[in-house]
Amino acid sequence: MYIGIDVGGTNLKAGLVDGEGSILQVKRIPLDFRGPEDFARTLAELSRAVLPEGEQAEYVGIGLPGAVSGGDVLFTTNIPMENVPLERLFRQYMDLPLLLGNDADCAAVAEFFCGAGRGTEDFGVVTLGTGIGVGLILNGKLRGGALSSEAGHIVMRRGGELCNCGRYGCWERYASATGLIRLTKEVMECRPESSLHAIAQEHGGVEGRTAFLAAEQGDEAALEVCREYVEDLADGIVSLINVVRPEAIAIGGGVAAAPDRLLLEPLREIVARESFSSHGGRATKILRAELGNDAGIIGAAFLGRVM
Amino acid sequence: MYIGIDVGGTNLKAGLVDGEGSILQVKRIPLDFRGPEDFARTLAELSRAVLPEGEQAEYVGIGLPGAVSGGDVLFTTNIPMENVPLERLFRQYMDLPLLLGNDADCAAVAEFFCGAGRGTEDFGVVTLGTGIGVGLILNGKLRGGALSSEAGHIVMRRGGELCNCGRYGCWERYASATGLIRLTKEVMECRPESSLHAIAQEHGGVEGRTAFLAAEQGDEAALEVCREYVEDLADGIVSLINVVRPEAIAIGGGVAAAPDRLLLEPLREIVARESFSSHGGRATKILRAELGNDAGIIGAAFLGRVM
Repeated sequence: MYIGIDVGGTNLKAGLVDGEGSILQVKRIPLDFRGPEDFARTLAELSRAVLPEGEQAEYVGIGLPGAVSGGDVLFTTNIPMENVPLERLFRQYMDLPLLLGNDADCAAVAEFFCGAGRGTEDFGVVTLGTGIGVGLILNGKLRGGALSSEAGHIVMRRGGELCNCGRYGCWERYASATGLIRLTKEVMECRPESSLHAIAQEHGGVEGRTAFLAAEQGDEAALEVCREYVEDLADGIVSLINVVRPEAIAIGGGVAAAPDRLLLEPLREIVARESFSSHGGRATKILRAELGNDAGIIGAAFLGRVM
Repeated sequence: MYIGIDVGGTNLKAGLVDGEGSILQVKRIPLDFRGPEDFARTLAELSRAVLPEGEQAEYVGIGLPGAVSGGDVLFTTNIPMENVPLERLFRQYMDLPLLLGNDADCAAVAEFFCGAGRGTEDFGVVTLGTGIGVGLILNGKLRGGALSSEAGHIVMRRGGELCNCGRYGCWERYASATGLIRLTKEVMECRPESSLHAIAQEHGGVEGRTAFLAAEQGDEAALEVCREYVEDLADGIVSLINVVRPEAIAIGGGVAAAPDRLLLEPLREIVARESFSSHGGRATKILRAELGNDAGIIGAAFLGRVM
């Protein structure tokens, strides 16, 4: 039995997970951050709430957006924690190890055991969201904690847009959902005839899926957006592949729900043509992440199996 | 006792290496390629020549420029071998396993055990030559064979120069010794007053060290070349670091002999400022590779210890 806690932007979700990755019990509460001590106590209470009387858990795993190192939270992007010794605080309330992972790493762990990465040894998940989160499992071990991959910060356009990380031209500036939305808006400005406008209005604004929806209807401007976006996405994926040559990479996040014809098929074509394996060595499979919202809990719960 | 064979552009060098990485015996012959069968027999003869009567070796390791996968040579850049089952051919002449590595990976293995990477678990070597060769050892295991890193083919300038690999704007187009020489020539064309001209003439042409030699004398144009080159070098190194977050990276190849003040010091400054560890996580040390010409033999000999 494993306990996994997923720290989202607005909720804390704890789950009891069995060895197969089935979630047997879930408890969700709104995130109400009142300082690290209180947060640690809440984590312990949530863990107890999902653990049946008399059952034992080996550890509690927690996944959060930010950076961790060992038992410490270095920073998080949604709650004000910086250099917090979270495991030490947690241990005051519960006598179990607390394993920390960032959310991209937890997504990779979940897919590795229960999703697109099953049966691989070298696997990565690329999550397309506000930024690009990358989790890598190499030789069956997570590159986690202080070694966690930040492949979203490969520079692909020297002197390009300023990234939050301080570099210019990072991959995630272009190929995240945020980058896709910006590109969609840019194209809309010079294409007033495009159905992108009507679709955006219908859904209350431009979203990651706007271009894909319009492209499915054959809108030319939207098809252009999709093509350019996939090129940017492919560029970083090929660079990532050339560095670590994994067996498979799964694409996750809201954008990954786009139709195969517009996203995965052209992506696979570029990867096959441009990655170094076209000259020899292992070709990397491009897959879609399979687990949805449960990935956070499952990945956190299974952190101890890949550390 | 281990046997390592270094396949260079013009020579074959075999060495007997002890557990500490000392080369006890060396034999060097000119490379005279007459087909895969003959090549395999030559490797066996060389191995026997360095192995004293009555001594046993566990295996023979061989490092060559190109790509390998298991016991097969996929291609090499200096001899015409393509999809050659080299281990199978070798076994006809000698009853020992033949372990294959590419030269960049062998450099990493040698430095890992006997040079700049001693005491690390996660280590990379970046060799600046005709291209950029990268060898990665993660969690004490070489990313070798079909998984060998091709990080020289991270795209850093989308739509930049065409690379041999088929992509545009690959890091090695700019930050290899070849890239440095091209940059030096470009700057020389518009700076006739620069001492780069005299230094190039003195050494019989523009080389990788030309700019560093002139910069040491305070030549402004040369200082510009060095600055721009180090920026290009740093850009790929930071991307590589952000993907795998190693403990240390060692820079090798002829260019690495440049004075610290012009190469390693500004490189370390950029890496400290731009790599993701400035926001948290492990900071990567930038070192100079320590082993010179012996790295090929030692790395090939120790391949079996990191596979």
